[in-house]
Amino acid sequence: MSDLISRLSLNQKTTNSWSLPEAVEGCVRHGIGSIGVWREPLADTGLEKSARLIRDAGLRVSSLCRGGFLTGIEESLRRAAIEENLRALDEAHTLDAACLVMVVGGLPPGSKDLPGARARVAEAIATLAPAAADAGVRLALEPMNPIYAADRGVCSTLGEALDLAEQFTAEQVGVVVDSFHVWWDPQLEAQVARAGKRIASFQVCDWITPLPADTLLARGMMGSGHIDFRHHLDLMTKAGYDGDIEVEIFNAEVWATDPDSVLETMKFRFVSELAPVAA
Amino acid sequence: MSDLISRLSLNQKTTNSWSLPEAVEGCVRHGIGSIGVWREPLADTGLEKSARLIRDAGLRVSSLCRGGFLTGIEESLRRAAIEENLRALDEAHTLDAACLVMVVGGLPPGSKDLPGARARVAEAIATLAPAAADAGVRLALEPMNPIYAADRGVCSTLGEALDLAEQFTAEQVGVVVDSFHVWWDPQLEAQVARAGKRIASFQVCDWITPLPADTLLARGMMGSGHIDFRHHLDLMTKAGYDGDIEVEIFNAEVWATDPDSVLETMKFRFVSELAPVAA
Repeated sequence: MSDLISRLSLNQKTTNSWSLPEAVEGCVRHGIGSIGVWREPLADTGLEKSARLIRDAGLRVSSLCRGGFLTGIEESLRRAAIEENLRALDEAHTLDAACLVMVVGGLPPGSKDLPGARARVAEAIATLAPAAADAGVRLALEPMNPIYAADRGVCSTLGEALDLAEQFTAEQVGVVVDSFHVWWDPQLEAQVARAGKRIASFQVCDWITPLPADTLLARGMMGSGHIDFRHHLDLMTKAGYDGDIEVEIFNAEVWATDPDSVLETMKFRFVSELAPVAA
Repeated sequence: MSDLISRLSLNQKTTNSWSLPEAVEGCVRHGIGSIGVWREPLADTGLEKSARLIRDAGLRVSSLCRGGFLTGIEESLRRAAIEENLRALDEAHTLDAACLVMVVGGLPPGSKDLPGARARVAEAIATLAPAAADAGVRLALEPMNPIYAADRGVCSTLGEALDLAEQFTAEQVGVVVDSFHVWWDPQLEAQVARAGKRIASFQVCDWITPLPADTLLARGMMGSGHIDFRHHLDLMTKAGYDGDIEVEIFNAEVWATDPDSVLETMKFRFVSELAPVAA
């Protein structure tokens, strides 16, 4: 159990109202050893100052969220997206982040061409992979729950993410396994095993029903929904993953709760929902 | 175009406020040659009377909706589900329905064992398949959008449905391809081709964003959302499917509209969204 809790990482989205310095202090106060950083609060505090605060606090950076949004059609949009991702890679390098999480983007406005959008993602990843290698940062492709296929991420399954990642070295391109996004997949067991060393990030939050009206905020605290996290952790362990486990919760109720109280609940649920049950 | 429109089938859910006799009259009034029947309005009107009305109107029955809900754990629940599905098979036989649509059921209350739920579905289908053959009715497994995996259908992909269906003859067990449920699947092209003669039903309605607050009513009229229906029809045609195409829309706004107006819109959109564009 103590070994498991040492792998807990606070993704900043879970404490959405906290600035980066507040989140760092929160991690220290609650004995959390790792943080998943978001670029917007990072920009608010400043890159160098943030990197120093995190380093001085002794925290690991389990991921930088997020790069991606690579599905634009016009050449100017595609070039802008590449440039934005290069900046994100620089930031991830400065933070010594384990990976840059890639939310690949949805269908462009007015387009219904899903295969085309997926092809543009593949093309952009091919452009970014060498830059990622230069920065010493891994791109982590995040397959997203199909609920977000139209408006957020056209990469919908772990198998699809691996098909793309495997065109590059494992150091350049890995995958994110986020329980919320992949829990329903009948291929989950096989694809996590296949992923092996490609697993760059493991994120957890629960699938709750009924879904909240705003589906972007539909993610629940572990134990509030339907996901068997112990099973997921077991699959990840068998696949050889022993890195940090990020709790990333987009949820209006969680965000309206005092963040210190959220961290207490998060720590408790992390252990009660993920730790192996004694035989 | 005239050939395509002759394949249009009104699924009763699209005109949810109409009784079965009203829906039959509506089909006749609007020149629609086929109907997808739901069991609840069927029971309200009575089986024999409904069968006679449909026969006298010269309508085909493209499907009976629905059987399934096979994930219960307790023996008594499982037996009750089998009995209910045997009744549905009898009804489908009497209506001369092309298939019985199977919505397999979600996770039982309190359970997080998704592989277990899927195994119980497979076991129940094995029990029902010979009865389906006796009734001369095909069981049509419906893979559902993962948004419903927890509370409605643990069969989440066409590939998963085919893995199960292929354990039986194509006459006994086929699959439903519903655009709303499968549009996001990166394996769609390959799995529709694989499905071939297993395709028992083709249903259409659109994926709209933002999703309505009640996700059970999240389905839109074709052309209101993100789905490329022409592409889907092309895949289905290449797979050898030339049967009816059901429009099944669960949507509070559609249900609040005068059903005759809904049928006018449905006919127009069916052609404008599905018919091949001249080169």
